[in-house]
Amino acid sequence: MTGYGLDNLPYGVFSVPQGERRLGVRLGNEVVDLSGLGGYFAAPSLNPLMAAGRPEWTAAREAVLDYVASGPPTTPLHAVTLHLPFDVADYTDFYSSEAHALNVGRILRPSSPGLPPQWRHLPIGYHGRSSTVVVSGTPIRRPYGQLGAGSYGATRRLDIEAEVGFVVGVPGRRVTTGAFEDHVFGVVLVNDWSARDLQAWEYRPLGPFLAKSFATSVSPWVVPLSVLAPVPAPAQDPEPLDYLRPAGPAYDLKLSISWNGTVVSSPPFASMYWTAAQQLAHLTSNGASVRTGDLYASGTVSGPSPDQVGSFLELTANGASPVTLADGSQRGFLLDGDEVVISATSADGKIGLGSVSGIVVG
Amino acid sequence: MTGYGLDNLPYGVFSVPQGERRLGVRLGNEVVDLSGLGGYFAAPSLNPLMAAGRPEWTAAREAVLDYVASGPPTTPLHAVTLHLPFDVADYTDFYSSEAHALNVGRILRPSSPGLPPQWRHLPIGYHGRSSTVVVSGTPIRRPYGQLGAGSYGATRRLDIEAEVGFVVGVPGRRVTTGAFEDHVFGVVLVNDWSARDLQAWEYRPLGPFLAKSFATSVSPWVVPLSVLAPVPAPAQDPEPLDYLRPAGPAYDLKLSISWNGTVVSSPPFASMYWTAAQQLAHLTSNGASVRTGDLYASGTVSGPSPDQVGSFLELTANGASPVTLADGSQRGFLLDGDEVVISATSADGKIGLGSVSGIVVG
Repeated sequence: MTGYGLDNLPYGVFSVPQGERRLGVRLGNEVVDLSGLGGYFAAPSLNPLMAAGRPEWTAAREAVLDYVASGPPTTPLHAVTLHLPFDVADYTDFYSSEAHALNVGRILRPSSPGLPPQWRHLPIGYHGRSSTVVVSGTPIRRPYGQLGAGSYGATRRLDIEAEVGFVVGVPGRRVTTGAFEDHVFGVVLVNDWSARDLQAWEYRPLGPFLAKSFATSVSPWVVPLSVLAPVPAPAQDPEPLDYLRPAGPAYDLKLSISWNGTVVSSPPFASMYWTAAQQLAHLTSNGASVRTGDLYASGTVSGPSPDQVGSFLELTANGASPVTLADGSQRGFLLDGDEVVISATSADGKIGLGSVSGIVVG
Repeated sequence: MTGYGLDNLPYGVFSVPQGERRLGVRLGNEVVDLSGLGGYFAAPSLNPLMAAGRPEWTAAREAVLDYVASGPPTTPLHAVTLHLPFDVADYTDFYSSEAHALNVGRILRPSSPGLPPQWRHLPIGYHGRSSTVVVSGTPIRRPYGQLGAGSYGATRRLDIEAEVGFVVGVPGRRVTTGAFEDHVFGVVLVNDWSARDLQAWEYRPLGPFLAKSFATSVSPWVVPLSVLAPVPAPAQDPEPLDYLRPAGPAYDLKLSISWNGTVVSSPPFASMYWTAAQQLAHLTSNGASVRTGDLYASGTVSGPSPDQVGSFLELTANGASPVTLADGSQRGFLLDGDEVVISATSADGKIGLGSVSGIVVG
């Protein structure tokens, strides 16, 4: 299995039947148990390692490489249960794909399409619910809510948002873009499940609430930031304010969205307008603190072409132009029983980010 | 000191110099140390007691009353440091005062004044940042941010929002309004500090973000829900959907806002349109879970008359009509060095909710 060699070694939390939660790394399709290494490796979550800071992250990686080289016993992936790899502190979500913001504006606000006026000046974001961040594979129960005035029921417009999430290790405030790699431990994939009918009715003026808060899925393996090769950030016009400069690293990740086994879109993360370093700088620019376990997501990753969008709202023009899946069935939004798998690798295919999946249950 | 007798006994977390954090109750202007009672009383936060559930809350109260009756040693309030009384899980804020929503709509959205279309159908809310919930007395550093396109600096429109906060003890999802008192442990006062210039620039379409996330202050004493006498909920038109019925208890609390010692407003909590039971039912109606330590705030409490508003945005018409303080100085928004104290009691004065204060530092 390419993508999960010694140059990756993502961290996760696993258990075997009747066993306790343990830290491990993924090597190919096997899990290496790290708990015997003691210290922060003996914790049942990544938080102590994440809090230890960048020099310790480097030392930990060397220790893990030495251990893996010693030929330790491994457990097949299919024989373990994977858990949420870290305890989520605050969860924040951004809106940093220009194509996505333009698509959503055109679909949801046809009378005033285009980007919000501040969109190119700051990375727009909002806070989400931490208690409902779940690990990949957790069934997603179709949420209920108000579909309009006097109307209550199960959402009819259940959607996904394919995103990349950044996990904070070291607490901070006023984190400069240059200090990004000292604070962010690693990367996960995120599916920000969304109920579009609830959202349209509730979101003015305080933003999305119940349309998002029922579930946010994350991939089980946290890829250390240090294994991802940075690429130059995209050009930004107007030039950002000082506190958002320099832009910091971008990452060329190729996402893939599978709907019941049919790949329906391939969003390119390199197309994001704002970088993760700028998002963190903005998030903390007012003096707010971030903590170990903070998760912040990029916002839906949509590239400029129709086969690169990160939501079904965009893919199907709000349900008006259904897609045809491999079995010949058509979809506007998610039906009960549907499964979505979002996976990603680095552009060169050398680093796998795993996948985040969920099956909709009624 | 009235309001803090045996019929109240609010819980808090205190320390004496060089001492550890301990659970206590307030009796008059004294603190009774509960840590010697063992069990959840020996924890350094209220979370274990809050998680124990309503029968245990009742038993705990009886144990505390017995202990207080035994004449235990007490420590004067002025000799202790008060801490955040519970570990905050998710923080949510509502928008449930009709007068406030109307005032804000008129000031911030003059082209479309009035209530948002869904306002009378559901309690509008959003998620805030948990990491910056601080205890009363914590200095509030004036936040920085974008004041408009290309403009970055310290906020010039630093404001308050006087609110009542509800602290969740027992986890749940789809919490009916009838189960409200089985899940909510107690009540605090909340000041949701707000930077109005940041907010106006950032909040469309995803809601307030950095304008709120720099600090949210809470009062140090959690008043058990069981000591507050419920009053009938306000009339609601249209009749709410089933999942928001019955409305559950309302509470007749009288808030008072002091600005550098001058009482500038007296918001009446009984005037809120949506009840705390309805807010919790709505918050969990989509299937989202709440946890021990979840804090949800009522939204700014503003009554219908000008001397009952819960924010300075409303009090001064967005700074256009400054108020005169007792020292003869005038204010539109907060200046560095200003102190705001929000306090409250039950309408009959028998139950004190203490106060939440903060001094602005530049």
